[in-house]
Amino acid sequence: MQIDLNSDMGESYGAYTIGADEEVLRWVTSANVACGWHGGDPSVMRRTIQRAKELGVRVGAHPSYPDLLGFGRRVMQITREEARDYILYQIGALRAFAEALGVRLQHVKPHGAMYNAAVKDQELSLGIAEGVADAGGDLILVGLPGSELIKAGEEVGLRVAREAFSDRAYNEDGTLVSRKIAGSLITDPEAVAERVFGFTRGTVKAITGKEIRIEADTICLHGDTPEAGAIARRVRERLEAAGIAPRALGEFVR
Amino acid sequence: MQIDLNSDMGESYGAYTIGADEEVLRWVTSANVACGWHGGDPSVMRRTIQRAKELGVRVGAHPSYPDLLGFGRRVMQITREEARDYILYQIGALRAFAEALGVRLQHVKPHGAMYNAAVKDQELSLGIAEGVADAGGDLILVGLPGSELIKAGEEVGLRVAREAFSDRAYNEDGTLVSRKIAGSLITDPEAVAERVFGFTRGTVKAITGKEIRIEADTICLHGDTPEAGAIARRVRERLEAAGIAPRALGEFVR
Amino acid sequence: MQIDLNSDMGESYGAYTIGADEEVLRWVTSANVACGWHGGDPSVMRRTIQRAKELGVRVGAHPSYPDLLGFGRRVMQITREEARDYILYQIGALRAFAEALGVRLQHVKPHGAMYNAAVKDQELSLGIAEGVADAGGDLILVGLPGSELIKAGEEVGLRVAREAFSDRAYNEDGTLVSRKIAGSLITDPEAVAERVFGFTRGTVKAITGKEIRIEADTICLHGDTPEAGAIARRVRERLEAAGIAPRALGEFVR
Amino acid sequence: MQIDLNSDMGESYGAYTIGADEEVLRWVTSANVACGWHGGDPSVMRRTIQRAKELGVRVGAHPSYPDLLGFGRRVMQITREEARDYILYQIGALRAFAEALGVRLQHVKPHGAMYNAAVKDQELSLGIAEGVADAGGDLILVGLPGSELIKAGEEVGLRVAREAFSDRAYNEDGTLVSRKIAGSLITDPEAVAERVFGFTRGTVKAITGKEIRIEADTICLHGDTPEAGAIARRVRERLEAAGIAPRALGEFVR
Repeated sequence: MQIDLNSDMGESYGAYTIGADEEVLRWVTSANVACGWHGGDPSVMRRTIQRAKELGVRVGAHPSYPDLLGFGRRVMQITREEARDYILYQIGALRAFAEALGVRLQHVKPHGAMYNAAVKDQELSLGIAEGVADAGGDLILVGLPGSELIKAGEEVGLRVAREAFSDRAYNEDGTLVSRKIAGSLITDPEAVAERVFGFTRGTVKAITGKEIRIEADTICLHGDTPEAGAIARRVRERLEAAGIAPRALGEFVR
Repeated sequence: MQIDLNSDMGESYGAYTIGADEEVLRWVTSANVACGWHGGDPSVMRRTIQRAKELGVRVGAHPSYPDLLGFGRRVMQITREEARDYILYQIGALRAFAEALGVRLQHVKPHGAMYNAAVKDQELSLGIAEGVADAGGDLILVGLPGSELIKAGEEVGLRVAREAFSDRAYNEDGTLVSRKIAGSLITDPEAVAERVFGFTRGTVKAITGKEIRIEADTICLHGDTPEAGAIARRVRERLEAAGIAPRALGEFVR
Repeated sequence: MQIDLNSDMGESYGAYTIGADEEVLRWVTSANVACGWHGGDPSVMRRTIQRAKELGVRVGAHPSYPDLLGFGRRVMQITREEARDYILYQIGALRAFAEALGVRLQHVKPHGAMYNAAVKDQELSLGIAEGVADAGGDLILVGLPGSELIKAGEEVGLRVAREAFSDRAYNEDGTLVSRKIAGSLITDPEAVAERVFGFTRGTVKAITGKEIRIEADTICLHGDTPEAGAIARRVRERLEAAGIAPRALGEFVR
Repeated sequence: MQIDLNSDMGESYGAYTIGADEEVLRWVTSANVACGWHGGDPSVMRRTIQRAKELGVRVGAHPSYPDLLGFGRRVMQITREEARDYILYQIGALRAFAEALGVRLQHVKPHGAMYNAAVKDQELSLGIAEGVADAGGDLILVGLPGSELIKAGEEVGLRVAREAFSDRAYNEDGTLVSRKIAGSLITDPEAVAERVFGFTRGTVKAITGKEIRIEADTICLHGDTPEAGAIARRVRERLEAAGIAPRALGEFVR
């Protein structure tokens, strides 16, 4: 059983601070670092990678639609070529900071609306995967199990990692329950920790109560709530109590 | 006698087209490619590098202040650390496209107001040079002879290249005549070609008429006027008539 | 028979020039002026309104999604409230220039992807209409006949104007033929002029050859091709030869 | 004795929250609302004006350089015409929201680096003042006493208001002590309240200990620290204990 814990990081921008980066970074194994298009700026990118390095956390790119105003949370109808080039641009920018700090980029996880759109949008997914392939460096592409993004990654020859969400309710078919529906978000730290443990065994209880199978290589911990640090800690403790030591994707994904 | 001919390229953006890239690219040996902050977008960056590769022209980064509205032509009071990180971000983004196309970045030339401010601003120049050094890859930093930028590049251990301007009038002290002064811009193709030839011998006639010495490794040809292509061609012909074959910076700068 | 001729204007941005504004402005009765979000900047806005005033052309706002990189041509999934506030912001900005120049804003026509999305998207259309209503000043909302946008405008109590396209092919049901289909764009000036004359009689020949009815208050002339000025002139001449004098929307829409 | 209390407001942007708006708004008489260029977005602008209206606080525009990344805190070398048009654009955008909510704009106070640059930069100041004049509506221009901005406002015929800073140390000549110098910022609520009371009598103790004269119509309370609300409250209580009721600028500036 191999499992990675990831969280979105470095989404502050200029005078604006967002996220409990410092608190959460201590408990995850992989950090998805914003690249300046939905959040993050060059100085934040540098600081975030530096801090991840100090804490032994692996670093990946967290690219987005060009939508700072919407924090990358709104679908934009871009072409496959645009997706490819937007992804490549952002990976390159982030990688320059990583390399300057002696850190090797591990993975790429699209942000927000782009991640969600890539579940079903084949053209977008191929564009993203091609951008990651263009970047070289044997980067791992992170996406939802069964998504077009994972398929596209495999199609272009990338290593891929399947992601589960620690605090999101699932439908019986393995898709995420819409955030608009009550109960879609699990906020109790104990319940989140228990779900993460379940993911390591390949199962989760759907919102209907039925236990379903979810194959995941990495589990997303949210980093943008006041309790994020405490939850992340509780998750890590729960796993370690079960004798499970999370490991970064790069150490086991093939 | 070694001389490089450079021009700014890839400054189009989205629906907007600017510059006579195709016409000028045929006659230069190095292209300074915009990185998205004053012009250029990911798709333009890809196309520009692709075209330079096809024509055997070496590629460098042309980073800027974050000022698309002002096309990077307005000084902004940024800190040394901001300069360093802005430069690193833009080099990284451009390099991802270069590497995807099998092209190695050769040099970095700051754009517009940043280039001009770096003539006298030591802190800014050190920030720029540190950003280039952080990017690694033995990049050559291009600046005005005698500028703080060239000094900063040498101080941080970079290869540097001194630039002369083919169509700008010079003061007797080797500085450029302000664009606000009549006669600051030379527009006659024959005169421009003759000045470029003069630069290869280390001399230029100042606006006062006095011949002064200018040591240059590379000469800037403007790419944004309707006549830019014809002038670039005339310059190249003039040099070749004198038995001088321009070579890219990377082939001779140490 | 009352007809207005409109064209998109003022889409240049900073160092970037786009559109044959000067050539087309002479022949239309209403100008849709970009507000800085897909094109246009404060100085361009001022100049464009000034020139329209000199030529006796009425001015309207041409607001957009926040997407300069995509020139407003890509759908973004914004909420009704965001649409409302984005529209209001842009109208307000443009109106300040209009009022400073003694010009009264006449109408609002959403740009590009927002205009197209508003044909079928009721929530978006209501947001747009509410933004226009919030702006006050008895502005006329321009949209495709039968669109959700026109319905929304009527629902919130605005004056509305139905628009026909001088150079776009129509399906038999009155919708526009996709630009991806051959023959979707009419480029022959004579044919365009003839179609415009047809619109004044309420008819157009669909791409199938069948004559269909289109009720239009205003006809869009494109302003972004090299021939735009010549076509606009030909249209105007054709109408005047038929004794039809185009009039600005504000003079006849109730 | 007439005195206004102002604070910067509505600088949040998209997913980013900044400032203790709600806490401070209760104690001031005038709110300077960001217009989207250094902070603020259309939805934030609407909400901020709405809340100010509910609390009976007058609203002004707080325009900036186009520098979201730098939060408007970095000087940019823009021309007089650019300053004029940037100011007019932002006032217009904000005013549309104000008018939609039945609120009349009262004043304009440039933000951050633009405010500071306008102390000594005559061309910039004239541009700003011309933008405010172009906007019409008898807006009051707020600036530092003795600044070029105040002079420019008077020159173009605007009503002007002189501003003092509640928590900034002063030099003996009435200029502000640089933030880089220790003691430049007063953080003790009691001391701040006492200084504000002093301003109502036209005096403040300079950093040297000498009492100097400062003529002020409005006093700036900072809104971006955790203690901002408590300090604002203490200031208001101190004034009221002395029988001084702050009034909005529009009620007494001629």
